[in-house]
Amino acid sequence: MDIIQSVRWTEDGRGVRIIDQRLLPGKLVERDLRRLAEVCDAIRTLAVRGAPAIGIAGAMGLVAVLGPNELKSRDELLAEGRRVAAEIASTRPTAVNLAWALDRVLKAAAASRGTGAAMIDAMRREANAILEEDRAMCRSIGEHGLALLHDGARVLTHCNAGALATGGIGTALAPIYLAKERGWTVEIFVDESRPLLQGSRLTAWELQRAGVPVTVLTDGMAASLMREHGVDLCIVGADRIAANGDVANKIGTYGLAIAARYHEVPFVVAAPTSTMDPATASGNEIVIEQREADEVRRIGDVPTAPPDVSAYNPAFDVTPAALVSAIVTDRGIHRPPFAFAESLGELAAGVSR
Amino acid sequence: MDIIQSVRWTEDGRGVRIIDQRLLPGKLVERDLRRLAEVCDAIRTLAVRGAPAIGIAGAMGLVAVLGPNELKSRDELLAEGRRVAAEIASTRPTAVNLAWALDRVLKAAAASRGTGAAMIDAMRREANAILEEDRAMCRSIGEHGLALLHDGARVLTHCNAGALATGGIGTALAPIYLAKERGWTVEIFVDESRPLLQGSRLTAWELQRAGVPVTVLTDGMAASLMREHGVDLCIVGADRIAANGDVANKIGTYGLAIAARYHEVPFVVAAPTSTMDPATASGNEIVIEQREADEVRRIGDVPTAPPDVSAYNPAFDVTPAALVSAIVTDRGIHRPPFAFAESLGELAAGVSR
Repeated sequence: MDIIQSVRWTEDGRGVRIIDQRLLPGKLVERDLRRLAEVCDAIRTLAVRGAPAIGIAGAMGLVAVLGPNELKSRDELLAEGRRVAAEIASTRPTAVNLAWALDRVLKAAAASRGTGAAMIDAMRREANAILEEDRAMCRSIGEHGLALLHDGARVLTHCNAGALATGGIGTALAPIYLAKERGWTVEIFVDESRPLLQGSRLTAWELQRAGVPVTVLTDGMAASLMREHGVDLCIVGADRIAANGDVANKIGTYGLAIAARYHEVPFVVAAPTSTMDPATASGNEIVIEQREADEVRRIGDVPTAPPDVSAYNPAFDVTPAALVSAIVTDRGIHRPPFAFAESLGELAAGVSR
Repeated sequence: MDIIQSVRWTEDGRGVRIIDQRLLPGKLVERDLRRLAEVCDAIRTLAVRGAPAIGIAGAMGLVAVLGPNELKSRDELLAEGRRVAAEIASTRPTAVNLAWALDRVLKAAAASRGTGAAMIDAMRREANAILEEDRAMCRSIGEHGLALLHDGARVLTHCNAGALATGGIGTALAPIYLAKERGWTVEIFVDESRPLLQGSRLTAWELQRAGVPVTVLTDGMAASLMREHGVDLCIVGADRIAANGDVANKIGTYGLAIAARYHEVPFVVAAPTSTMDPATASGNEIVIEQREADEVRRIGDVPTAPPDVSAYNPAFDVTPAALVSAIVTDRGIHRPPFAFAESLGELAAGVSR
């Protein structure tokens, strides 16, 4: 099975190789990031996206940029590291995963006892650990999630919570990939996920590439699909999960959850434990970011509405826990009533696309 | 208030003037149709769309094409009329409104007793009657529907059931226009209505032009809008209404109805009595047309998904009567339980876009 890897080291180990997601599904272009401007540009312009993937790319990017500074003094290198990390972090200020991953790498440098070269080595090991932990986390979510699938299952997903969004095989898509690995036939349906079309552009592309049968639909067709053709399971990722189980995720998730409930289709959220934010009591406390109107008024460069018309464009929505059948994490399957009092990660995973 | 008129006679009364809806919202271009090829092309390519507007354009187009045949014999003119009508009808074979309107014009010719000129005059009067009946029907729907609105109402609609789809002020939008005429402030939200974007392209354009405050959202944002900002009423058009009140309408309507029910927002259908099809017992009998995959895989000329991925693309969906709060027709407001045993029209209105 050909599951893409969205972020990895270049062959010489000195650069970060990413898939440029802006060009998908039209073109598969990999970019090697070595200079600071390249790392920042890739994150800022969404060439790399998805909270875990952004964190990994940032951490590895920090190491790549600092690599040529082996001869600097300890203090010089630490100062340079803070400067570079701050610049990378500023490209997506709301992606708390990014800040968290950069911080881990800086702390590893500070904790190492050696010279410049040893410090850079320690940072490289830490960035690698972040990548490997993410890969293991994805796999673990997939293994737990398999219990909710069966051979022949018809599964509906939204947006992209797949390999392209993580260092591994994704979150919502992880059980799908493991089902395929096991030889099961699983048929996936994916909402295109307007406005930015991560479902049709990215999820369809990575599943197709891995040989998983996938069908694209527009967001308004999901209820019709459930009624006319049947769906066994809806599974989506999450940007943040409140202590009571309310789920913030890409806009469109909430409507899908309502339709699933109406059709008695289980609605499952798959996310790392770090996505749980016990400090947020419920979804009502989550402030919903409004994005620019042109994302709704255009598709790419094509106008789809009068240029000056008002547009409603929330980045994500909140699905109340009452509509969530199960939350699958790397620790297992959580069933309602949800009450999350702790998080594995030092920080909740950030809201990012 | 500047409500556009989508189909009318040219100044000399010898041609049909339509707004070319393919170019909206970018450009307002009117086209005069006089020759058969022009009439067929406009209907086939969706320059004119919406079941009532297609019927009117077809009827008036038939008269325009036959106009220069005044000197032909009675039999020659009737034969020519049948030939032209058949050709126009073949451009949208599933639009039963079109066949119905053409048939009315042909029957008027056959019923007239005079020569060629008198026959053409009779046909022109019949085409005019179809247009005027449609205008009156729209106004009547608007007047009845006003009872469901109030000053300050926030209304969500889907697709385009407005002036662009009819000869008059629309069906779902008719009460909105009359509310505006009355001096009420009514705020409209409209789903973009993928795949063909009639909501963002057409409804937003015609409302904005008439000075009605309108906000566009993607189809997946409707539930979020209801939860975060509140909506007083959903109102949509219909392609066909079964005897039990099940409603076939543009894809996306059903999901919207489910979200409205979840938020306890009244879900109202506005349509001419002719849209009721007592011969169809329930929505289960309605065969859902699947359209070509590229409508989902592209937006205009822009690919939005892998070119060979499967796509689900039903033209419309069926909303069960249980989710419908009221059906507004030119005869009044119908409340559940619905049981439609008769239709005003000779035929149910066709499924068309």
